[in-house]
Amino acid sequence: MNYRVVCNILGKVLLAEAILLLLPMTAALWYHESVLPFLWTMLPLALLGGGLNFIKPRSNSLFAREGFVVVGLSWVLMSAFGALPFVLSGDIPHYIDALFETVSGFTTTGSSILTDVEAMSRGCMFWRLFTHWVGGMGVLVFIAAILPVSGDHYIHVMRAEVPGPTVSKLVPKARKTARILYLIYLGLTLLEAIFLLCGGMSFYDAILHAFATAGTGGFSTRGASIAAYDSVYIEMVIATFMLLFGCNFNLFYLILLGQARAIFKSEELRVFLAIIAAAVLTIALNIRGSVGGFAQGLRYAYFQVTTIISTTGFATCDFDKWPELSRWILVLLMFAGGCAGSTAGGLKISRVIIFFKSYLYELKQLILPTRVKRIWFEGKAVSDQTVRSVLVYFQVYMFIIALGVLVLSLDGRDLVTNLTASIACMSNIGPGLSLVGPTGNFTFFSIPSKLMLILEMLLGRLEIFPVLFLFAPSVWRKR
Amino acid sequence: MNYRVVCNILGKVLLAEAILLLLPMTAALWYHESVLPFLWTMLPLALLGGGLNFIKPRSNSLFAREGFVVVGLSWVLMSAFGALPFVLSGDIPHYIDALFETVSGFTTTGSSILTDVEAMSRGCMFWRLFTHWVGGMGVLVFIAAILPVSGDHYIHVMRAEVPGPTVSKLVPKARKTARILYLIYLGLTLLEAIFLLCGGMSFYDAILHAFATAGTGGFSTRGASIAAYDSVYIEMVIATFMLLFGCNFNLFYLILLGQARAIFKSEELRVFLAIIAAAVLTIALNIRGSVGGFAQGLRYAYFQVTTIISTTGFATCDFDKWPELSRWILVLLMFAGGCAGSTAGGLKISRVIIFFKSYLYELKQLILPTRVKRIWFEGKAVSDQTVRSVLVYFQVYMFIIALGVLVLSLDGRDLVTNLTASIACMSNIGPGLSLVGPTGNFTFFSIPSKLMLILEMLLGRLEIFPVLFLFAPSVWRKR
Repeated sequence: MNYRVVCNILGKVLLAEAILLLLPMTAALWYHESVLPFLWTMLPLALLGGGLNFIKPRSNSLFAREGFVVVGLSWVLMSAFGALPFVLSGDIPHYIDALFETVSGFTTTGSSILTDVEAMSRGCMFWRLFTHWVGGMGVLVFIAAILPVSGDHYIHVMRAEVPGPTVSKLVPKARKTARILYLIYLGLTLLEAIFLLCGGMSFYDAILHAFATAGTGGFSTRGASIAAYDSVYIEMVIATFMLLFGCNFNLFYLILLGQARAIFKSEELRVFLAIIAAAVLTIALNIRGSVGGFAQGLRYAYFQVTTIISTTGFATCDFDKWPELSRWILVLLMFAGGCAGSTAGGLKISRVIIFFKSYLYELKQLILPTRVKRIWFEGKAVSDQTVRSVLVYFQVYMFIIALGVLVLSLDGRDLVTNLTASIACMSNIGPGLSLVGPTGNFTFFSIPSKLMLILEMLLGRLEIFPVLFLFAPSVWRKR
Repeated sequence: MNYRVVCNILGKVLLAEAILLLLPMTAALWYHESVLPFLWTMLPLALLGGGLNFIKPRSNSLFAREGFVVVGLSWVLMSAFGALPFVLSGDIPHYIDALFETVSGFTTTGSSILTDVEAMSRGCMFWRLFTHWVGGMGVLVFIAAILPVSGDHYIHVMRAEVPGPTVSKLVPKARKTARILYLIYLGLTLLEAIFLLCGGMSFYDAILHAFATAGTGGFSTRGASIAAYDSVYIEMVIATFMLLFGCNFNLFYLILLGQARAIFKSEELRVFLAIIAAAVLTIALNIRGSVGGFAQGLRYAYFQVTTIISTTGFATCDFDKWPELSRWILVLLMFAGGCAGSTAGGLKISRVIIFFKSYLYELKQLILPTRVKRIWFEGKAVSDQTVRSVLVYFQVYMFIIALGVLVLSLDGRDLVTNLTASIACMSNIGPGLSLVGPTGNFTFFSIPSKLMLILEMLLGRLEIFPVLFLFAPSVWRKR
């Protein structure tokens, strides 16, 4: 373990967080609220971050191991400090609750412990929704985009933070890749904010909801979420942007390069769109009786399907009251998640495709053992190593969800609440069914349950291994 | 595809079923009931079976492909004919219900559509519980044990029918292996029947419950299942035999060979016993308040844990009313199942062990890529091919359960009912939670739902591929 390089990067992360806090502080100033909660958070961040940043690495060598550790530690520390403004402002008095809300923000989950959303101060509300935007693309990718990071080994850090089974560099340099990703991210966010402004949203709400959509987070400034605006236009804009932010960002880069046609060759995109279309149609048909017609059914189904599959979690209606078929389809979509290389959570469509190809492969191998070829995905043969990692990933994913339900069930709530709460946090969605449905929240869980859900959110966002690494003693040995 | 050898073996299977029906017919005679339902079932079985048996194979070559097809077709045909006595006697008037009950019997699931168990005629009740015994060890293994099957290729058929990721031949000859397995099976069944007789059960009940335990089935002659006897002795005898029938039969063979010490070297057995011990203790502590003390808690917990993990499904109490923690532990045990090479269903402990070793392998590979060794199980290195099959098996398993819930949810029942019904049928357990809990039954499901559950029971018992094979066009092409 190259401790010096780990400390150095951690220092940069904490300094970056201190700088990012300037934005909500500005909002607090603008709305004549106290800026002290932010100042008192920035001070320790700047001191600790500055101190760590002084540790200069003797060598820049950075391997997968260091990449995972840096990412795991960064997210834990960022969340621990990021919770302070909520506590210091008195908006969320208990630290564990504030930590839950912050981790839910950074991991773009959107599960909330707030019972009265509108009561929060404007500065803290800005920070709450801004964490989605910071966590969506990842803070270490952000650092790579703005600072001269040392050495090309930094790709190991990005690999550990960007979702999906494999990370492809858009361009040879990690730094340039990070910059392109962030520019696309910023551009799409601004575009959405403009669309929302055109729909009559206030500037503050438009910016914040654009942040929350871009990170596929799901926090809202309103207790009733998007239903509060009661506008078909706003729903359609947000639904469409949720769909876009659920796509692999490489596709947007292809559009920028003028290769718009190439994007429809993407297997993952085609499957993603096909799943959405099938789910929207089935649900619209299934709920048409209870919402007043097929057209209204399509409206709700399009929004809810995109919000769940992109793992955002905004609400426009209480889908917990929908017929069983629609509820179960939404639960299945919670597992699927968005595309690799997007800001979405869940298993990711590319993994789901590799699962199905593995079944077929196995079946073919039993029928005609001699004729078996390899598994192909996006025009390339998938290595056995990747297939195996993807298969194991699913197992660990399910195991962690099951473990989560075990801890939650000590609280004595019903099985549907526990199961969907565990899935919703692991897949970084937000709402589940029953007590944690779109009209509920997570405030009633005990502290052990909240800690378990915090762990699940981090495991889900960082795709398990960076977090597990922090608990493995052999990681910490010096080489 | 060697069609002639497939037809020939199918003929033997149907003839075997005709002969096995002599037993319930004798019971009907003894109790002065009509034997016509059995005679009218045996007649077409004998005619069709005899006809198929006349087709002599030109070559005895038999590969994995033929093995899967023979097993898949055998089970479908056996169930289709096996349902007739229930319909002809009028005990179960609707054919789909009778088919559900028969498949539930042969696959040793034990889910029932009967609302008044005690009303069934004695002959049919004998057949109902005897199907558990026939299906437990497998009818094709039975044929291998009693008939001179041609060629050593028959191991492919046994491999497709015996549960577990790999089948080891006890002795070089497939036929002798089958004979040893059936003798152990018969011996243990008789031993249990004697123990039950000593506990005051009637001869008829003792024999039938021994059949149902041996096959890890779960049907009972009583509507209240084992709770009807209200005897701690009977509960402990049955619980202990459920545990034994959940063990790999190879271990009993080792005992017969005088190598009793060797069995405790079995990783699978140790993990199986450890899971049972942990689950029994946790549940006993969790329910002690509601059942009147820890000792009473241990009694119920020991029975319910062994009945669920061995995928039998007898009931001594309504665990659907237990606290959430205990309910969830039982759901998790439904997935685990018994050991490979036992009569139990579920994923099998050996697969669960390989899952966990795969996680650790993956984690180690990320930490120290250069030092990675292979995965070891039971003192042998597991081939990459086996690891991959095991991982894919879990995926397909979960996918089929999810698909089952999708079909069931069209009926509009609650999520816990649909989910646990689907798990209970796929894992061949019997009862689930909520409406399909220990005091409920499966009669209220619609015909499409019942057909889906029938499919799941067959997929679960035959470990998916033999059934999937029947739907793959390329299997049916001539070589």
